[in-house]
Amino acid sequence: MGYVSGLRGISSGQGYSSDVPMNLDPVDGRPVEMVLDLERLARERADGAWYDPSRRDMWRFGGLMALDITDPADAAHIVPLGEGCTPLLDYADHPVARAAGLALSVKDEGRPHAGFGANPTQSFKDRGMAMVVAQARRLGLSRLAVPTQGNAGDSLVRYGIAGGLSVVVAMPPDTPSPILGNVAAAAHMHPGQVVLELAGPTIREAGALLKAQYLEHGWFSVATFQEPGWRIEGKKSLGLELAEPAPGDTRWSLPDAVVYPTGGGTGVLGMWKAWDELEALGLIDARRPRMLCVQSSAMAPLVRAFDEGREDTTAASGPGTIAFGLNVPAGVGHFRVLQIVRASGGACVAVEEGDIAAEFSRVWQQTHGWIGPEGAACLAALPQLIERGLVKAGERVVVVNTGSAEKYLPAIRDLMP
Amino acid sequence: MGYVSGLRGISSGQGYSSDVPMNLDPVDGRPVEMVLDLERLARERADGAWYDPSRRDMWRFGGLMALDITDPADAAHIVPLGEGCTPLLDYADHPVARAAGLALSVKDEGRPHAGFGANPTQSFKDRGMAMVVAQARRLGLSRLAVPTQGNAGDSLVRYGIAGGLSVVVAMPPDTPSPILGNVAAAAHMHPGQVVLELAGPTIREAGALLKAQYLEHGWFSVATFQEPGWRIEGKKSLGLELAEPAPGDTRWSLPDAVVYPTGGGTGVLGMWKAWDELEALGLIDARRPRMLCVQSSAMAPLVRAFDEGREDTTAASGPGTIAFGLNVPAGVGHFRVLQIVRASGGACVAVEEGDIAAEFSRVWQQTHGWIGPEGAACLAALPQLIERGLVKAGERVVVVNTGSAEKYLPAIRDLMP
Repeated sequence: MGYVSGLRGISSGQGYSSDVPMNLDPVDGRPVEMVLDLERLARERADGAWYDPSRRDMWRFGGLMALDITDPADAAHIVPLGEGCTPLLDYADHPVARAAGLALSVKDEGRPHAGFGANPTQSFKDRGMAMVVAQARRLGLSRLAVPTQGNAGDSLVRYGIAGGLSVVVAMPPDTPSPILGNVAAAAHMHPGQVVLELAGPTIREAGALLKAQYLEHGWFSVATFQEPGWRIEGKKSLGLELAEPAPGDTRWSLPDAVVYPTGGGTGVLGMWKAWDELEALGLIDARRPRMLCVQSSAMAPLVRAFDEGREDTTAASGPGTIAFGLNVPAGVGHFRVLQIVRASGGACVAVEEGDIAAEFSRVWQQTHGWIGPEGAACLAALPQLIERGLVKAGERVVVVNTGSAEKYLPAIRDLMP
Repeated sequence: MGYVSGLRGISSGQGYSSDVPMNLDPVDGRPVEMVLDLERLARERADGAWYDPSRRDMWRFGGLMALDITDPADAAHIVPLGEGCTPLLDYADHPVARAAGLALSVKDEGRPHAGFGANPTQSFKDRGMAMVVAQARRLGLSRLAVPTQGNAGDSLVRYGIAGGLSVVVAMPPDTPSPILGNVAAAAHMHPGQVVLELAGPTIREAGALLKAQYLEHGWFSVATFQEPGWRIEGKKSLGLELAEPAPGDTRWSLPDAVVYPTGGGTGVLGMWKAWDELEALGLIDARRPRMLCVQSSAMAPLVRAFDEGREDTTAASGPGTIAFGLNVPAGVGHFRVLQIVRASGGACVAVEEGDIAAEFSRVWQQTHGWIGPEGAACLAALPQLIERGLVKAGERVVVVNTGSAEKYLPAIRDLMP
């Protein structure tokens, strides 16, 4: 059954069974993560066969995933829909990158689905939700609930239907209509199995509705970090993909810097965990990319805490950003994001809304590549990152574009002239 | 109270009061239309003041609209949201137009809303629904129902909310998610006032649901032609706009040909009525544009009836087209479309799905102008129209693009590389 040996409180270090559903660590109310027995993995799979690069989805990291698709017992829980294995686009021609001599690329999580090599609902949330649904099936959980501002709900619905689970998605009524429409249509096509609850104005009210009407009646919350480390394990595949050998090569390696649009931060925790595990396996050394977490000045709890040297965020307020995924005023995983950023020699930086919009429009005009506003926020941060010496000439810099602009229409229509 | 003198059966000629709600003509089950007292209009507004070109919506045709916004009693019923007054784009550079020497332009009904000069829900349906809601308010009807494959429902919801009416929209669950999401969000934001019913797989089942659960309980159907000529009166403004004088000019004139993507045909009836009324006012002569109705070979009831010389369509079957608005297998107004097309010296022509897709992709690549697949179908028909002598070098040809590609995402995503 794969190499998971248990759960561990991220902050407390307290161990728990991974076979019993739980939410936050009862010791300190902080998230838990899954622990893999890497020594056993190294011992049993010394031939390196835990990794199958010919498989074109995130499950090709077989034994290093929290469920090993090469193990028939694990594979029975997994519902592969093509998630992961997303393209790394060459952005060396980006004007700022060219002027500064950066080897810039964009990891594009928002590509339209084409079977494999793209996320089925066009966002990085699919990595997490694919793992969530697989783990829920492993534990016999049949009813999952998530509050969301969009993509996470669309993703959970897709995997829930495919995996035969019931899901309830609570979202604000001003969620962009393509996402809302996907979930509403699924709710109609799968009555009883998929439930859409609209509650607002923010995700906070959506969460309160779930708590009152569902969680107390046996539905399991898979809100960010409420599930026991599952979404981290899914997002981990993003870090593994950034490290894996180029075709024909055998050396695992990391970029010099990762520019990441950070909301709740699951992806930061996932990537960091991936690299720690690769180091434990002896595949990379102790060096890490500088983690450069980008937020909007319209919602910047991490940036404020980072600049003030604090260990955790306090709830931010702000008008909110067109980079919808960054509208996260607080998060139980933020303390860990701050630890990671500092350990990496990185930073949390804020970009102005006007700069996000301008960069988004510019990229749209030049590429029509449907890059999302979160990815655009990262590109808009480049001048600041260069000026502050956080990325330098000759360095390999990866921007993560977490989703497609397509999902946010018509809310961002005016930026797509 | 404007210049409407009553209703008239389009085929029977039977007169009815326009102050009593009705559906189809009880004489023959065919549509009715509104009749304007143009002699009185000419007499009372001999100064031409019935028309206010400085007003940037369809209501600038004041006295020639079925409700006259310059009359305070009528104006109280109208809920103007900027509908109509859409741009006529120069398409002389289109490769087929250039090669054939056509003065081609595209009347773009799908432009993003910008207050005025665009339809608020990005489709020509807004012209009809703006009139529907105004007329319903005039008659004190408070509950409207429509079965739809998409845009008509989005539009009715927008005007219904603005006008304080209750609306129920029934649509198939595979309606493109931006439209479904708009309506679902509105239903949540306005509980009781906006109701979304999903029924499918086709609009037929949606209509049956409305009939069984709503129409028999006092809701008024504003399905195409079920309302008493109101949508024709709204769409009439499209014909008036094609005829109105250029800025600085005073002469009304018509193009040589209008290429129109035809589903139910309300727009054809509306444009034709507009021109008849302009002729009655002495503003144009008896010449008319050739009406060139475009359908997909995947759903072509009008083309079949036209080619076979029949007076009406019979229900077509077919796989359906990506030009969603053309998925209309039969229509009570089709007999009149055929009359108009023949009277104009025009034709009904079918284009292949592959040609629609290719033209849509080509236009998208070149302009990124969000033209809809219905508009693309018309452009794809040009080679055939030229070959058949239906449009000729030097002629002024207008293609009507009835809506935005944006509303159909992600269903047409693969065509937008």
